[in-house]
Amino acid sequence: MTDETVFQPIEKVSIVISKGSLDGVYPGLIMANGARMEGMEASLFFTFFGLEAILNKRMDNLKVATVGNPGMHMPTLIGALPGMSAFATKMMKKEMEKIDIPPVREFLTMIHDSGGELYACRATVDMYHLKREDFISELDGIISVGQFYEKAAGAQIIFT
Amino acid sequence: MTDETVFQPIEKVSIVISKGSLDGVYPGLIMANGARMEGMEASLFFTFFGLEAILNKRMDNLKVATVGNPGMHMPTLIGALPGMSAFATKMMKKEMEKIDIPPVREFLTMIHDSGGELYACRATVDMYHLKREDFISELDGIISVGQFYEKAAGAQIIFT
Amino acid sequence: MTDETVFQPIEKVSIVISKGSLDGVYPGLIMANGARMEGMEASLFFTFFGLEAILNKRMDNLKVATVGNPGMHMPTLIGALPGMSAFATKMMKKEMEKIDIPPVREFLTMIHDSGGELYACRATVDMYHLKREDFISELDGIISVGQFYEKAAGAQIIFT
Repeated sequence: MTDETVFQPIEKVSIVISKGSLDGVYPGLIMANGARMEGMEASLFFTFFGLEAILNKRMDNLKVATVGNPGMHMPTLIGALPGMSAFATKMMKKEMEKIDIPPVREFLTMIHDSGGELYACRATVDMYHLKREDFISELDGIISVGQFYEKAAGAQIIFT
Repeated sequence: MTDETVFQPIEKVSIVISKGSLDGVYPGLIMANGARMEGMEASLFFTFFGLEAILNKRMDNLKVATVGNPGMHMPTLIGALPGMSAFATKMMKKEMEKIDIPPVREFLTMIHDSGGELYACRATVDMYHLKREDFISELDGIISVGQFYEKAAGAQIIFT
Repeated sequence: MTDETVFQPIEKVSIVISKGSLDGVYPGLIMANGARMEGMEASLFFTFFGLEAILNKRMDNLKVATVGNPGMHMPTLIGALPGMSAFATKMMKKEMEKIDIPPVREFLTMIHDSGGELYACRATVDMYHLKREDFISELDGIISVGQFYEKAAGAQIIFT
């Protein structure tokens, strides 16, 4: 501890999104949007399954992960029925809408328009043989982990 | 790198708990408790499924996520049998007890009594139509993402 | 915000690995390796199921979590078939190899040889009744959460 502990406000966040489920993607988007609303710098780095959230063909159809998620209050075998994930997804989207949280594509555009930056992980892009045109047009770049760290100078890194 | 690199000790942590499974909740509680024991400031911010951990009706019955968790060493179909999660949960609680880690409710009270702060995420509370009285009495407040960032000034944000 | 906002580069990362699936372990290893390649200090702290990644008998057989992971594009019931996780694991290992990412054991040795540090969580080690010889020889120590925070002085803590 320093003598008097005057805490510096958080000025910047670099949020990593590594999951591809609806419930895995939204927390990072909400934190990025909240940061921009507070005047903080914010960037999102999509890696591994998180890439789904910025892929044109996938981002509108993300699903809630019903199995492996005891928080959903469904016995696991029921959670494994194909229809349950669709149902939970529909429910979640409806509730998100009620509290004014937009669908993923619209939310990303909103974050980008307010000054937030969107990056895809180079290694994951190469692993899945993807091209720039496969991604949402707002994407600011495809960058390496090293470049991610450079851009994260002065930021809190938040891995979701 | 600066010339001499005298690293500042971590003085404060703001831990986000976003999962509702027993194995998803404990790491954050352990890190908050460890921080307080070292004399660091610590706060917990419960969001999304993590809200389960501070809900009076749910917090005593959190379960281990057995499916979607290859680390459990159970073939996935067996992991999906309703009884397995209960079994894994019982085992985990027993092992936690052996190393002196208390049940969730008692652990939260301990963290709060030692000066740690507990907050619920406003958006999630609204999404699930919850009220203050649904939560553990130790809860210090229901706050927005913006307020979370303000309170996190000077802290390491740890998203679990 | 300070007056001019000259952001300090990230100099050090302390990465927590809490999951035991192949897709849960790799992001942390990639971030640690990327940090070392940029000349940053890097350490890995294995806790809960993450301990699997440094256990001699387990680390060569980590599996991809196919259920509870909608990003895999498999209907959940199919994802629960025992063979599917093995298939997804084989596919992932093959793709990782193509982009020059080595198997877990080799990757950990590489990170360690380049100056990265590897630590196991004392509480988890005690919970599973493990001994030093159960772990990869490169392990730098078994430490408490308090010691983890001490070693994380000046670092960005990244919980994966």
